[in-house]
Amino acid sequence: MNRSKAIFYHAGCPVCRQAEDNLAKALDSSRYDLEIVHLGENKTRIAEAEASGVKSVPALVLDGTPFHINFGADLKALKS
Amino acid sequence: MNRSKAIFYHAGCPVCRQAEDNLAKALDSSRYDLEIVHLGENKTRIAEAEASGVKSVPALVLDGTPFHINFGADLKALKS
Repeated sequence: MNRSKAIFYHAGCPVCRQAEDNLAKALDSSRYDLEIVHLGENKTRIAEAEASGVKSVPALVLDGTPFHINFGADLKALKS
Repeated sequence: MNRSKAIFYHAGCPVCRQAEDNLAKALDSSRYDLEIVHLGENKTRIAEAEASGVKSVPALVLDGTPFHINFGADLKALKS
């Protein structure tokens, strides 16, 4: 079975880490191929996150659909 | 292995359904025992959700830690 793509975008903030350790890692790895992207360290991928509809971090994009999880930081704040 | 408790609180709204169909159902069922609670139909459980730190729906509580997923409705709006 092909696994679906899951991308967890974060910025290393405490809210981000809590979401990563709990929610992102709770995904069924037999069905989802999880990639974890630190947008503070990979600013070149901010545009990709925005194109998926991500407005803040932490966010989880499942099959292209963005889910914002609590609120850590606005994407705009990561661009500077 | 004992499974951890996961409770997905929603109110039947479109944002809620999208989160349920994608994110809640993406959890690893071998590790998480998922319960889905419609707070509009089970108002007696609003207090329990609030006690877990839930402020809006849809929200997923993993092992007692609340994660708000996007934004559908404020919990206050469900009390009336």
